[in-house]
Amino acid sequence: MNGDVKKILTAVKEGRLSVDEALLEIKEEPFADIGFAKVDLHRRVRQGTAEVIYGAGKTPEQIAAIARTMMQNGQQNILITRMSREAAEYVGRESALDYREEARVGMIGQGHPADGHGYVLVATGGTSDIPVAEEAALTAAFLGNEVKRLYDVGVAGLHRTLAHLDDIMNASVIITIAGMEGALASVIGGLADCPVIAVPTSVGYGASFNGLTALLSMLNSCASGVSVVNIDNGFGAGYLAGMINHIA
Amino acid sequence: MNGDVKKILTAVKEGRLSVDEALLEIKEEPFADIGFAKVDLHRRVRQGTAEVIYGAGKTPEQIAAIARTMMQNGQQNILITRMSREAAEYVGRESALDYREEARVGMIGQGHPADGHGYVLVATGGTSDIPVAEEAALTAAFLGNEVKRLYDVGVAGLHRTLAHLDDIMNASVIITIAGMEGALASVIGGLADCPVIAVPTSVGYGASFNGLTALLSMLNSCASGVSVVNIDNGFGAGYLAGMINHIA
Amino acid sequence: MNGDVKKILTAVKEGRLSVDEALLEIKEEPFADIGFAKVDLHRRVRQGTAEVIYGAGKTPEQIAAIARTMMQNGQQNILITRMSREAAEYVGRESALDYREEARVGMIGQGHPADGHGYVLVATGGTSDIPVAEEAALTAAFLGNEVKRLYDVGVAGLHRTLAHLDDIMNASVIITIAGMEGALASVIGGLADCPVIAVPTSVGYGASFNGLTALLSMLNSCASGVSVVNIDNGFGAGYLAGMINHIA
Amino acid sequence: MNGDVKKILTAVKEGRLSVDEALLEIKEEPFADIGFAKVDLHRRVRQGTAEVIYGAGKTPEQIAAIARTMMQNGQQNILITRMSREAAEYVGRESALDYREEARVGMIGQGHPADGHGYVLVATGGTSDIPVAEEAALTAAFLGNEVKRLYDVGVAGLHRTLAHLDDIMNASVIITIAGMEGALASVIGGLADCPVIAVPTSVGYGASFNGLTALLSMLNSCASGVSVVNIDNGFGAGYLAGMINHIA
Amino acid sequence: MNGDVKKILTAVKEGRLSVDEALLEIKEEPFADIGFAKVDLHRRVRQGTAEVIYGAGKTPEQIAAIARTMMQNGQQNILITRMSREAAEYVGRESALDYREEARVGMIGQGHPADGHGYVLVATGGTSDIPVAEEAALTAAFLGNEVKRLYDVGVAGLHRTLAHLDDIMNASVIITIAGMEGALASVIGGLADCPVIAVPTSVGYGASFNGLTALLSMLNSCASGVSVVNIDNGFGAGYLAGMINHIA
Amino acid sequence: MNGDVKKILTAVKEGRLSVDEALLEIKEEPFADIGFAKVDLHRRVRQGTAEVIYGAGKTPEQIAAIARTMMQNGQQNILITRMSREAAEYVGRESALDYREEARVGMIGQGHPADGHGYVLVATGGTSDIPVAEEAALTAAFLGNEVKRLYDVGVAGLHRTLAHLDDIMNASVIITIAGMEGALASVIGGLADCPVIAVPTSVGYGASFNGLTALLSMLNSCASGVSVVNIDNGFGAGYLAGMINHIA
Amino acid sequence: MNGDVKKILTAVKEGRLSVDEALLEIKEEPFADIGFAKVDLHRRVRQGTAEVIYGAGKTPEQIAAIARTMMQNGQQNILITRMSREAAEYVGRESALDYREEARVGMIGQGHPADGHGYVLVATGGTSDIPVAEEAALTAAFLGNEVKRLYDVGVAGLHRTLAHLDDIMNASVIITIAGMEGALASVIGGLADCPVIAVPTSVGYGASFNGLTALLSMLNSCASGVSVVNIDNGFGAGYLAGMINHIA
Amino acid sequence: MNGDVKKILTAVKEGRLSVDEALLEIKEEPFADIGFAKVDLHRRVRQGTAEVIYGAGKTPEQIAAIARTMMQNGQQNILITRMSREAAEYVGRESALDYREEARVGMIGQGHPADGHGYVLVATGGTSDIPVAEEAALTAAFLGNEVKRLYDVGVAGLHRTLAHLDDIMNASVIITIAGMEGALASVIGGLADCPVIAVPTSVGYGASFNGLTALLSMLNSCASGVSVVNIDNGFGAGYLAGMINHIA
Repeated sequence: MNGDVKKILTAVKEGRLSVDEALLEIKEEPFADIGFAKVDLHRRVRQGTAEVIYGAGKTPEQIAAIARTMMQNGQQNILITRMSREAAEYVGRESALDYREEARVGMIGQGHPADGHGYVLVATGGTSDIPVAEEAALTAAFLGNEVKRLYDVGVAGLHRTLAHLDDIMNASVIITIAGMEGALASVIGGLADCPVIAVPTSVGYGASFNGLTALLSMLNSCASGVSVVNIDNGFGAGYLAGMINHIA
Repeated sequence: MNGDVKKILTAVKEGRLSVDEALLEIKEEPFADIGFAKVDLHRRVRQGTAEVIYGAGKTPEQIAAIARTMMQNGQQNILITRMSREAAEYVGRESALDYREEARVGMIGQGHPADGHGYVLVATGGTSDIPVAEEAALTAAFLGNEVKRLYDVGVAGLHRTLAHLDDIMNASVIITIAGMEGALASVIGGLADCPVIAVPTSVGYGASFNGLTALLSMLNSCASGVSVVNIDNGFGAGYLAGMINHIA
Repeated sequence: MNGDVKKILTAVKEGRLSVDEALLEIKEEPFADIGFAKVDLHRRVRQGTAEVIYGAGKTPEQIAAIARTMMQNGQQNILITRMSREAAEYVGRESALDYREEARVGMIGQGHPADGHGYVLVATGGTSDIPVAEEAALTAAFLGNEVKRLYDVGVAGLHRTLAHLDDIMNASVIITIAGMEGALASVIGGLADCPVIAVPTSVGYGASFNGLTALLSMLNSCASGVSVVNIDNGFGAGYLAGMINHIA
Repeated sequence: MNGDVKKILTAVKEGRLSVDEALLEIKEEPFADIGFAKVDLHRRVRQGTAEVIYGAGKTPEQIAAIARTMMQNGQQNILITRMSREAAEYVGRESALDYREEARVGMIGQGHPADGHGYVLVATGGTSDIPVAEEAALTAAFLGNEVKRLYDVGVAGLHRTLAHLDDIMNASVIITIAGMEGALASVIGGLADCPVIAVPTSVGYGASFNGLTALLSMLNSCASGVSVVNIDNGFGAGYLAGMINHIA
Repeated sequence: MNGDVKKILTAVKEGRLSVDEALLEIKEEPFADIGFAKVDLHRRVRQGTAEVIYGAGKTPEQIAAIARTMMQNGQQNILITRMSREAAEYVGRESALDYREEARVGMIGQGHPADGHGYVLVATGGTSDIPVAEEAALTAAFLGNEVKRLYDVGVAGLHRTLAHLDDIMNASVIITIAGMEGALASVIGGLADCPVIAVPTSVGYGASFNGLTALLSMLNSCASGVSVVNIDNGFGAGYLAGMINHIA
Repeated sequence: MNGDVKKILTAVKEGRLSVDEALLEIKEEPFADIGFAKVDLHRRVRQGTAEVIYGAGKTPEQIAAIARTMMQNGQQNILITRMSREAAEYVGRESALDYREEARVGMIGQGHPADGHGYVLVATGGTSDIPVAEEAALTAAFLGNEVKRLYDVGVAGLHRTLAHLDDIMNASVIITIAGMEGALASVIGGLADCPVIAVPTSVGYGASFNGLTALLSMLNSCASGVSVVNIDNGFGAGYLAGMINHIA
Repeated sequence: MNGDVKKILTAVKEGRLSVDEALLEIKEEPFADIGFAKVDLHRRVRQGTAEVIYGAGKTPEQIAAIARTMMQNGQQNILITRMSREAAEYVGRESALDYREEARVGMIGQGHPADGHGYVLVATGGTSDIPVAEEAALTAAFLGNEVKRLYDVGVAGLHRTLAHLDDIMNASVIITIAGMEGALASVIGGLADCPVIAVPTSVGYGASFNGLTALLSMLNSCASGVSVVNIDNGFGAGYLAGMINHIA
Repeated sequence: MNGDVKKILTAVKEGRLSVDEALLEIKEEPFADIGFAKVDLHRRVRQGTAEVIYGAGKTPEQIAAIARTMMQNGQQNILITRMSREAAEYVGRESALDYREEARVGMIGQGHPADGHGYVLVATGGTSDIPVAEEAALTAAFLGNEVKRLYDVGVAGLHRTLAHLDDIMNASVIITIAGMEGALASVIGGLADCPVIAVPTSVGYGASFNGLTALLSMLNSCASGVSVVNIDNGFGAGYLAGMINHIA
């Protein structure tokens, strides 16, 4: 904002702009200006790196149009989440799209090279949690993070978790993804020294209540350093993990 | 029932009872009879062993009266649960009562000597779960079970659990007691080979919802062999563990 | 674990392995070792008896591959739960599979011969609960338990329950399966002297809330010796019943 | 209403009232008129029998004032529910009040003599349900119904229920009162041939959720002829039972 | 039961049966006997009147088989609820079936002639509640009750309710059926002098939560004499209304 | 009512009607009369303006019939909500229907010209909320209100909201429509000086619980002047906004 | 904002302020400026009228200090809500405070004279709802609205509501306040032609769930023109009613 | 672990330890060893920095004893959370304790000097959220983080939030703390570029359900980079913020 307002002020000082004209411009400016600076913030990741399109509820045509506009504005890395196969086929006709169906993630461009503090570990309790995990892992990787995957290490088979103690203890950030009782977050939170992002999944049946039980369980984790995102929100966890891994 | 009905039938056969008189007696008999056989079943534990008084909502006078009646009928072992200090003081004036305030349990007599298959392990996630654990442990012990205690082994400090792997793997039945996220049930359920009774506790705050989260979490345990009782129901778990440990 | 570590130690003692090499191996070992010993624990039942594949969310190909591997490792008894007809047809092409569609259970091999303390009684409140009951009954039977079935004995027709009082009072473990208000668990729990595993089902409509009401009802059972598993979790109940029936 | 409107119409006919004056009066009349006729309906029971004061949230002075007004209007039978000891003492100073503290019910007058079709049976699952049961029983009795009490016949001790089969099968209406899992409603509903009013109570702990579990359980009763009132609503059940017992 | 036991006793008296043989028969008898007497109770209405088949979850073949057996046993009036069009077509091939698709009710025979105290009024808040209302109305009518229908009188158009004040005030029993906020039960409960059975329906959207809001609303009715059955349980309301209307 | 009763009174005065005959007529009259005056109130908007048909659960034939009757009675403006494409096609065959599929709204006639105090602003948090917003906007416009739309101004991109501060601060009524966390209502409520009607939508996933979270969030808004309608109830918000905008 | 920025611009133009100094001031300004303009918005009502202090969680000293500051800034009308007796006594020592204990409302000054479109009607279902109603009524009156009270007109005594039909039909805005089943909102919403603000109260017991039932019921009102505020939020309703009554 | 095992291996190599003795020691070792390394992990923060005692449910004596032990082991910085005034007075008698009653936090020692990447911003929606905020701020500061406080910037007064845009945009981590509708997390999440930890508080009434609404709202935040901890969990947020601020 400063730059633009400074120009307006200078113009006023130099008599090129009347006070009233300046007033009008300044009144219009700040939000639009901030707006422009921030318009992409909630869906874009650090200028020059990548932009994100949330594909849910958008038609293939809409997704393609948004991606086209972004590319025309010079963006080379675009991450599309919750993308249907139909949308992927449609977008793939006009752009080189790397589509991962399990995660419902589409990627245009190579993403940002990994340049964070360390690596992001993505761990799941079971195999059914993998789609959410892949959404998280692909997001983190695309946004410039080294990612390690540690799948199917549910607490009922503790040895499997413990067998990867090194990976757990050396991570910069860990994303734990689990449905049913969601105990993995507490177990890994107790073993690790780094921030743990817990993602409850809707995996389970009966009293899992579509992820509610895992969500509540994770919120009550007795391990410190654990925080929670929405049920099945792999993207949110991957994005946040990347943010943490790039803290300056 | 058979004995009584046989007498009636014999009386009919011998003409000492008319058909109509017999009909009336038989009609009255069966339920009362079953009744008498079962009247104590839900609060008594194996004939000759012990009886249980659920103290909640009973006045000291009522508890004392019930205990007195039981003792007059020859019962030497009486377990009183949810017993207030006031009730303990009142009952203690007329009987030798061993009162454990933390567990709110009072015991008259020595209980039944331990004669089960193995031992019952009582494990808690934290120190705040100990009152419930003691209710469970004292119940199981009083009803004739060897009991081992393993307190404060929450999953956030996994090493503490693992340090007692032998106790876990050699138990006949395990009672796991935890509030907050209740993950202990899954971790122990995954390590053990025996039935695990999970007791959620109302320990916690916020989204623990007075034990609801631990309850749901335990019901969704990914470990096999785990079943759940009501929140804070230490007695129920101790009673059931004793039952399982005496399966014939 | 002992076996492997002993070999390493002997090699060190005999100079065949350096201290550092041994250190590395031991460091890698314990969890993998425990892991291997336990990897099947949560899905396998007593060594040499049977293994279990949880079929939900697995493709026919995946199930077939897992079963093949198990058989190649010498396992002759495999129980597959939540198995779709499609998966059954696929697996049936390469193995002799006994598939029970109602229970969605597939079995390879004869299962373990019944060798528990007594029999497991499986009781349902209504006919709609039978699929869950069959999952429980087939599981318990396959894992080496004599099973008796007592279906459609809901509490609204108490005489039907009472007509089978002998079966109830002589069981080693009882599995009670009911939807709607789930009162069967309390009624049978009050009649029986053995552990009762209650399985709420999603049978019902309106305020049954897909099994939540039966679940809460069973958790509040006023009968002692009753514990609860997840909604519709017939396998869990059958597995636990088998465990209890084999307590040593 | 008819009486008043008739007077107006007669006045019009006799020329004592103009059409417009009459129109105004009639327009004002009907609701006030119906109002007066119905003002007591929701708290009064059959004209000439008894009136009811809901004492919760009313001061002793307010209760006394209402009772005084009723008596001045000739009402000799007044039932006061949810009445505190303080209110009872206050009201008792000026009127002959029969106060039952357990049920928090106060009665002025003898109530209506029993003149219903048959008797109302009030059954409870446990002893803690008795205060609610007494509210129901005293209400029904005061409003002109013969009442039989059957307390502490919880389903965990089925023989006790069955021992009173005759009372159950001969009742005109049954009120079943239970907390915890509320299974009594289904058991009695299955045994009886008459309407069963189920009253969940807030008795219990943990997952009883202050009566919610009993409420849901009763709403899902598999027995026909069962309906449910609010948690702890003994008055409502007693009032409804009396209504049913007097159907003409 | 008496008849059968009397025969046995007579046979014993006359020496045609030994005491032990009689003992065996009597032991087998009572529950089976009570059973037989009660086996139909929860689905049959007053001997000689009608029997009820709950069609949900039953195949057309099963329904037809049950109906056939009933008819072979002399039953001429059979009510089938929650009956699909397919089942109706199947059953209709072998019996004269009067099928009402909206209510999903099928009827064999004419039902019992109306012989209750008065009439049952069935009132709905909206037109979407009519399927549930018809289930209630057809049930009550088939079981021997005069039925009046008062549909679409929701409280937002109070005049429509008030226009039928006579029907409301003269009914013996009223069934009020409403979704959304379920206020109809309170309004009619306040106007009527007779028992009101409230049936919440799953009609609505958003915060109606499939009938939960109407259910809770009805349970909290400030009008006396109102009780509630399960969401969408038209049959239960019609059955109970008939019971009340026949109180002797 | 006055007209009809006046006629009756006059007839009484003139001796053409006996007092008793008049009494009967008046008794029958008032509610029917009020009824007729109000029958359309809850679905009609200010006489002479427009009528509304709630299309959900109505067949195309039923909607067409209702619309036909309205038009035959002189109504030229009819708004049909929750209208399927099928219904629109059917109705469109006989009337000139302006159908907006996204909002599921059909309009016959031009609606009432805008004549309120100011304009109604309809703001949404995201693009997925637009169908609900359009239902609100079209309703308000059809009922005689100027409408401004402000879509996709979710709080995560605050600048977009702030960029339209003038529109917000000058509105007469604002409808804020949002799913997920529903924070838009508080943000706009804090900026605006006028009544804000908040409409939670079922947009979201996981812990949005189909709009419950947005609903609760909006009810707890820390901004004054905010009230809430049911989830997805665009019509209700548009209708209420129009009412407020026409307050006299 | 314009005024202040204009001064800055003029100063730049006139050379009294450098561009950089101006830049700094403008950067600091807008939000502080908007802030100043809005700082009181959410708790103050129309400039020059009244200010509001939310007393909950504030010490008597804090409330007194805030009030003092307001008065020092020339504000003569201050409304204090959720004010304890202690706070009232404390504040009353230094200012002339009109304290209404039932409503927990304190008022300094006479409030704004009534100058809205019409009057605000405040109606309650029962007498226990009056404290919330008084908070609403006093708020609306203090903020410049004529207020009519209509208390204890619950739907179970419909005649009482109908007797005041004129008051209902002539109001500009109606606030309906009810606990239990909250049906009053629908009944009044159906009778009235103006906006209805529904306030659920925590009055009731059992399944009223502290106002949740009334809240859900009101959100599902079948009457158009009804919106809802938080449980027991009398102030919010009174404030919103005043806003609506002053729409320009 | 390596160190200890290496010693054992060397002893075996050198013949000072038999293979069996070594086996036993190694078997006992790993968990105890890991245990010792990790025993404090979940409550201690980076070795040499500080230790944490969770004071809830601990007696003053217990807290004092734990602190004493820690100090005897050389720990100079101890943070005690959820500490009552009584406990503070007790501990203060033997140690120099800095007790902050509002936050219920006690501190022994100066804490770790601030050495993170940047500063932690702690923002609250209202003044009632400050106790939770102080727990978070004191925790983060004690564990070596620069902390900035930004209190009472609720979204209903957006200008207050925006006035501090610089503080928000330059933070390394932000903790947003809010009750009621919890919208602050989304607003700040949309403005900031860093990780946002959302802490719902139990501040509010009615439909805030003791923090549940804020919790759900925060989990559904439409802003990326937001994660959530348990209701009122200020410590957890402060601890996690410190962790993130020290990512290496």
